[in-house]
Amino acid sequence: MPAKDKTLDDLFIDTLRDIYYAERKILKALPKMQRAAQSEKLASAFEDHREETETHIERLQKVFDLVGKAPRGKTCDAIEGIIAEGEDIMQDFKDSPALDAGLISSAQAVEHYEITRYGTLRRWATELKMKEAADLLSKTLDEESATDKKLTKIAESTANVAAH
Amino acid sequence: MPAKDKTLDDLFIDTLRDIYYAERKILKALPKMQRAAQSEKLASAFEDHREETETHIERLQKVFDLVGKAPRGKTCDAIEGIIAEGEDIMQDFKDSPALDAGLISSAQAVEHYEITRYGTLRRWATELKMKEAADLLSKTLDEESATDKKLTKIAESTANVAAH
Repeated sequence: MPAKDKTLDDLFIDTLRDIYYAERKILKALPKMQRAAQSEKLASAFEDHREETETHIERLQKVFDLVGKAPRGKTCDAIEGIIAEGEDIMQDFKDSPALDAGLISSAQAVEHYEITRYGTLRRWATELKMKEAADLLSKTLDEESATDKKLTKIAESTANVAAH
Repeated sequence: MPAKDKTLDDLFIDTLRDIYYAERKILKALPKMQRAAQSEKLASAFEDHREETETHIERLQKVFDLVGKAPRGKTCDAIEGIIAEGEDIMQDFKDSPALDAGLISSAQAVEHYEITRYGTLRRWATELKMKEAADLLSKTLDEESATDKKLTKIAESTANVAAH
């Protein structure tokens, strides 16, 4: 299809594929972050988020279903870059007292990427009068925001105290 | 320095270099986004943000100065990926009625990356008792959040209406 004939529906599906790829990439990255975490609180937050991520993937599959498309990812350069930076920190700060602070910063970069994508997708779903899809995307958006806030709390209460 | 001997100060400087690289990359990307924008409102928002970005770069240079380091960037894979995705959208939706919606989504992905990095840096500056640095980072963080909200408003008021 020529670019000029594309519509918001096409942009919606492209972005859905982008975040579907990203979520599956995150699902693979979380156990590694969990093993790297020094504090139990942080390791447990990563474990909780891994479980939540499985639900987010299922919700995306439902959204694909609602738009009549088979779930398919599309390489997401943004999440590749964000996760690559997280891996650099894990390596560069291995056994350092600042490691958990670094892991939290990487995880929050992931959360913010998800927050922006889900925020956009929910807006477009609403514009496109896809109420059920908008509701599913909204649920995930709320959970990503809650995870981001939880990580800030952990950072303020434990990780950074140890990093001095 | 062995990874285990690194501290939160090292992590702070690494992340400062990351966002310094990112801001300069964004400064280069914004005129291209401005030229691509279909609505005047959006083009003008990109122009305003380009000016703001210059101030953000100057503030980062002050923070480098406060920690006694020369301003230096460090390749930021995350922003490279986020901007590459934005360029794909500009190409894939050229002359499409959904182009502005796509440009806004790309710009908001950039804003959220900055929000997470400045949020983290401000937290660490506070932990490290660097009040002046924390204040500078805080100012930029507020402006990035305001830009994100402004883009949401533009999306809701104009761009998406045209994208149907």
